[in-house]
Amino acid sequence: MAIHLARRMARVEPNAIGELLALGADPSIISFGGGYPDPTLFPAEALGQVMAEVIAAPGGQSMQYAPSDGLPELREQVAALMRADGTPCNAADVLILQGSQQGLDFAARMLVDPGDVIVTEDPTFLGGRIAFDPCEPVYAPVPMDDDGMRMDVLEHVLKTRPKVRMIYTIPEFQNPTGVTLSLERRHRLLELANAHDVVVLEDTPYRQIRFTGETLPTLKSLDTEGRVIHLGSFSKVLVPGLRVGWAVAAPALRAKMALLKLANDTQTSTLNMAATSLFLKKHDLDAHVATLRAAYARKKAVMLDAMRRHFPQDVAVTDPEGGLFTWATFRDGFDATAFMRDVALPEARVAYVPGGSFHPVTERANTARFNYSAQSEARIEEGIAALGAALKRHA
Amino acid sequence: MAIHLARRMARVEPNAIGELLALGADPSIISFGGGYPDPTLFPAEALGQVMAEVIAAPGGQSMQYAPSDGLPELREQVAALMRADGTPCNAADVLILQGSQQGLDFAARMLVDPGDVIVTEDPTFLGGRIAFDPCEPVYAPVPMDDDGMRMDVLEHVLKTRPKVRMIYTIPEFQNPTGVTLSLERRHRLLELANAHDVVVLEDTPYRQIRFTGETLPTLKSLDTEGRVIHLGSFSKVLVPGLRVGWAVAAPALRAKMALLKLANDTQTSTLNMAATSLFLKKHDLDAHVATLRAAYARKKAVMLDAMRRHFPQDVAVTDPEGGLFTWATFRDGFDATAFMRDVALPEARVAYVPGGSFHPVTERANTARFNYSAQSEARIEEGIAALGAALKRHA
Repeated sequence: MAIHLARRMARVEPNAIGELLALGADPSIISFGGGYPDPTLFPAEALGQVMAEVIAAPGGQSMQYAPSDGLPELREQVAALMRADGTPCNAADVLILQGSQQGLDFAARMLVDPGDVIVTEDPTFLGGRIAFDPCEPVYAPVPMDDDGMRMDVLEHVLKTRPKVRMIYTIPEFQNPTGVTLSLERRHRLLELANAHDVVVLEDTPYRQIRFTGETLPTLKSLDTEGRVIHLGSFSKVLVPGLRVGWAVAAPALRAKMALLKLANDTQTSTLNMAATSLFLKKHDLDAHVATLRAAYARKKAVMLDAMRRHFPQDVAVTDPEGGLFTWATFRDGFDATAFMRDVALPEARVAYVPGGSFHPVTERANTARFNYSAQSEARIEEGIAALGAALKRHA
Repeated sequence: MAIHLARRMARVEPNAIGELLALGADPSIISFGGGYPDPTLFPAEALGQVMAEVIAAPGGQSMQYAPSDGLPELREQVAALMRADGTPCNAADVLILQGSQQGLDFAARMLVDPGDVIVTEDPTFLGGRIAFDPCEPVYAPVPMDDDGMRMDVLEHVLKTRPKVRMIYTIPEFQNPTGVTLSLERRHRLLELANAHDVVVLEDTPYRQIRFTGETLPTLKSLDTEGRVIHLGSFSKVLVPGLRVGWAVAAPALRAKMALLKLANDTQTSTLNMAATSLFLKKHDLDAHVATLRAAYARKKAVMLDAMRRHFPQDVAVTDPEGGLFTWATFRDGFDATAFMRDVALPEARVAYVPGGSFHPVTERANTARFNYSAQSEARIEEGIAALGAALKRHA
């Protein structure tokens, strides 16, 4: 039989990188490919306690259906976290999501018709493109420099491209580059979005994991017109396996996203919302995040130090102020995908993510993303040394 | 600011019934409105134990990211459950979902372009329509009788309507009517789907909750051409708050749905998949389901007996062989929505779901869905008595 698929499915195809990364699942490979937090830092004991408590609570409410917007107490706690972070927010502004990834899907479905334009950073988070693609957008990638998305190029795009519906950005420690959008550019981005009446989708999964420098205001906190949809997540600061994230948006947008939530999966897991809520009530999230910050800062330092010692001189890497990733640019003509397939995996036994697929339109071959959060410091040193030796052998 | 919304959002609107049912959340109201399982039957102790065990397991894998298809061991266990239920199935055929609701969304996104036709039972599950609506389908509702969807009407629809992409059915103890599709019609439905090359979306959230009569083969087990997408769920047999369901489909369709899963929310909660898997390994699901069957069979009997004693003679109700719902048809001219708003809620302090919104195209006013699983037997008797008295007072 030949099933007739919807037109959008032409944009829903497996990613070649996924197949390459699957090779890195071999435990004898040192993988810098994923975006996994360090499982040795998971608050397992605290999470076990709160989960036991919510399951044992009389009435069984933590196991029952819950409102599709999310548990009211968790929405209130998220709003309090947002306020503590400098962003005005009430519980009514919060929609609990199955991870912030779900917010990428909902934002695109809410705003983007086939042929509409989404502005992204270039390179950008692959999961964003995967979420947006079923809406059949056209991408307008805006290059980045050390201060994030270039505002001169953004201005040009907004002036020249019709039907721009959304500017997608990860302002802190961007995935894949590790770069942070400067304060000046945050103000400018909002000015431009206001002038051109475009929604801003602010994705902040790494925001709390800052090593150095001052915390910058969220785009949502600078938003005077209700045009910023802010996405947050407990995946990096608590555990990814809970799948609890959130959106904060103006009432009309939040309400539409809540209807998409109901349509899509009824609700996020009651158990996981209840456990997250009780964790926030009984445990010190700030103290836990401080531990993560210190541990990931050390790992980043270990990786960058190892890269300086072991990589050829012509490899440039970013020095992120936080988050999970650094971004390497190899010499012109270097093919990071071919090198991973032919050398890094079979010889050095090391995996990374070749950078090409992070570019929405024009792939560039000589870049790669390295994650430093998942591996131990010893494995980081070992893997970077092996990769550096292989790079020099094949230079 | 006036945000430009995608065209599909014209189909994503709040349901008036939702607002009416929200009034039923008052604890002094006896609500037969939801589709909640009885929380006193939740296996809290067993669930608490398995959750504690998976969280405490060395390595923290239950809290980490997991494959978007679902945990391999859970996919294998679901395949074994399917085989034990008479449906050939391997782990590779299974996609774990955030509840089977998510499968409704994915099936429509995979198959339905704007203006394409979805065949539904009439009346049909409201959550199905809510999931399908963003794909901008046209509905072709097929009336039901005591044996389920009428095959003569289905045949006529398939012969006369172009662009039918999907036949959506809940074969067992349908929501909202409680009616089961007969064996003869199951065979006929597959014949017609094969002849007209249409996908069948089989939704089975209540299948295991059978009180009387023989278990009938799933449509998937009768599918010789790989055109049935089967959806199953642990929400009714374990707990809804886990949000764990599954799809079983032919490789090409399952692969596309898996890509939509990755795009939509990355994965179902690792914790909840791991806990479900360990529950299936360490506890006797069949024994638990037997307990549920007995309890819900008693509740159904209590409700139908109370309706016979308290309701006016001209109210007809279905006698389901399983599941959570019975369907009432009142006299011609009766407006179940107005009666709920004006009498049932304020006077009788009872809620149900007026039947109108279950009809995709032509609403009918004189029907209502009653749930018997959520309330205690005493509250069922009390609520039906109060409602019956109010019906007689206002006849």
